[in-house]
Amino acid sequence: MFSTDIFAEMVEQKLPSLTESKTPATLFAPIAYTLSGGGKRLRPVLLLAAAKAFGLEPEKAIDQALGIEVFHNFTLLHDDVMDNADVRRGRPAVHRRWNASVAILSGDAMLTMATQLMAKAPESLLPAVMELFNTTAMEVYAGQQLDMDFEDRGDVTVEEYIEMIRLKTSVLLACACRMGALLAGASEESQKAMYRYGELLGLAFQLKDDLLDTYGDPALFGKEIGGDIINEKKTWLWINAMEREPQRMRQVLDKKLTDYLKIREITEIYDSLSLADESRRLIERYTEEAVDALAGTDIPAAAREYFTSLARKAADRAN
Amino acid sequence: MFSTDIFAEMVEQKLPSLTESKTPATLFAPIAYTLSGGGKRLRPVLLLAAAKAFGLEPEKAIDQALGIEVFHNFTLLHDDVMDNADVRRGRPAVHRRWNASVAILSGDAMLTMATQLMAKAPESLLPAVMELFNTTAMEVYAGQQLDMDFEDRGDVTVEEYIEMIRLKTSVLLACACRMGALLAGASEESQKAMYRYGELLGLAFQLKDDLLDTYGDPALFGKEIGGDIINEKKTWLWINAMEREPQRMRQVLDKKLTDYLKIREITEIYDSLSLADESRRLIERYTEEAVDALAGTDIPAAAREYFTSLARKAADRAN
Repeated sequence: MFSTDIFAEMVEQKLPSLTESKTPATLFAPIAYTLSGGGKRLRPVLLLAAAKAFGLEPEKAIDQALGIEVFHNFTLLHDDVMDNADVRRGRPAVHRRWNASVAILSGDAMLTMATQLMAKAPESLLPAVMELFNTTAMEVYAGQQLDMDFEDRGDVTVEEYIEMIRLKTSVLLACACRMGALLAGASEESQKAMYRYGELLGLAFQLKDDLLDTYGDPALFGKEIGGDIINEKKTWLWINAMEREPQRMRQVLDKKLTDYLKIREITEIYDSLSLADESRRLIERYTEEAVDALAGTDIPAAAREYFTSLARKAADRAN
Repeated sequence: MFSTDIFAEMVEQKLPSLTESKTPATLFAPIAYTLSGGGKRLRPVLLLAAAKAFGLEPEKAIDQALGIEVFHNFTLLHDDVMDNADVRRGRPAVHRRWNASVAILSGDAMLTMATQLMAKAPESLLPAVMELFNTTAMEVYAGQQLDMDFEDRGDVTVEEYIEMIRLKTSVLLACACRMGALLAGASEESQKAMYRYGELLGLAFQLKDDLLDTYGDPALFGKEIGGDIINEKKTWLWINAMEREPQRMRQVLDKKLTDYLKIREITEIYDSLSLADESRRLIERYTEEAVDALAGTDIPAAAREYFTSLARKAADRAN
């Protein structure tokens, strides 16, 4: 049976074993803290589901599923230091709970730990597994670098933004989908189709994140609405508004408003351009393209329905 | 021919290719800067020499030699952020020349780049190569964590210190020696003997570093003499003095002296205990044990002479 809850629970059950009774405790305590922070476990769920879709028992892909979750959490840990973020999943970020040195070093250890878990693949698959994982990791860093570069630029285009989120977010979902297929011995064509599915899912996922940050239901979103606007983060909404109404945007920003008024006035510009609707249409387009990509595989109907439903739920989610 | 200069030059020649025309340039510029900083290139030299000793052309081990040098430089880069160090090899540290975020992210990319280079090993050797490299990396982090933990402790023993430098410094030299042997298809026994050689060489190397920091010739050392004493770094000399003359040490430290006088008075305590001589004897012991470990291999006489001479030169060096 394809069940997100069961796949996520498999991962949740195994994560503590990665840090239990490891020494020095001062190195592994922040790793255990990070890995116990919850989250959707979306990447390992995709990896396990993809493995199952191509006929491999999910248990046989659990090491790589854990590896991709450890890698994802490593990137969040180091990103929080770089972004000087105080909170992660409702708890103090590691560099606040401990300090920046602890966050840097435990993150490094998580990257190597993720690589160790990936390397538990069967010998014949190991070159392909390492190639996929390492290439993806380099792309994720490139995405994070572009995101930081964009902070100092006023002329970021929508196209550049999509390429940035593709690298920073999508390729890791794509890697998860392809890794599951690869471990299950899927054909090159199927592996590529699963990669494409994950990549398009990732674009829709990140655009939905951006949309929720401004237009989410405060009761369901889990974070304050408008954080991206307060921080003048160059999201899809922001870049489009800047391209189409640069003067109005500049006027609002020059007023040095309170957070509340800044969110209201910027959102009014977004509204006047119907950007929320346009963003929803783009999310829907990427979602349906992701679903279409599944046609390039020979997975059974039940698997195809699962991945279709997963993509549509991600596009419709409220948090 | 076994020539340190030729091995080092092979590495120096190839390093620039790792970053040339890679994008985004903002991610790779600090990596190129770090890798162009010089240094002894000791780890790749050991790896290439070990490969040659067991009959492999050094050219066939160049990827892993580059990988171990990239890994070593990654650890220095992140250590400099953690230690808040301003200077590395006579130039501003990356987090000073750019900023901490750049240093963290480019370091992450260097760790993955090192893993990619390691993973270029032939498929049949890949599991062993990844196992050796990843295990070593985890030990290096453990050593760095212990080093940081020691900063807050007044009761570090000599035994704990030796274990810390074994992890932080020695295991990477040991990994280099074993990796070369492994790539050349050496027996398990020979691989272990080469690992032991590198490990003992590393202990001698770090103790010599500590000794030079206090007793080096200022004209040859390349850094200011006494930095460890000013920073109250828990080196072999410091820990031994603290164990044997705790009251005299505390008296000097309580005086809040100028750097110059602090160095002079602490060195006087070291002198009264003949710690420099004792340290030299210990360095010599580790060096000769390293040389003895070579007997556990079947390498030809020329190779054995080379590794013997390399260890003795490292113990006798002035910088």
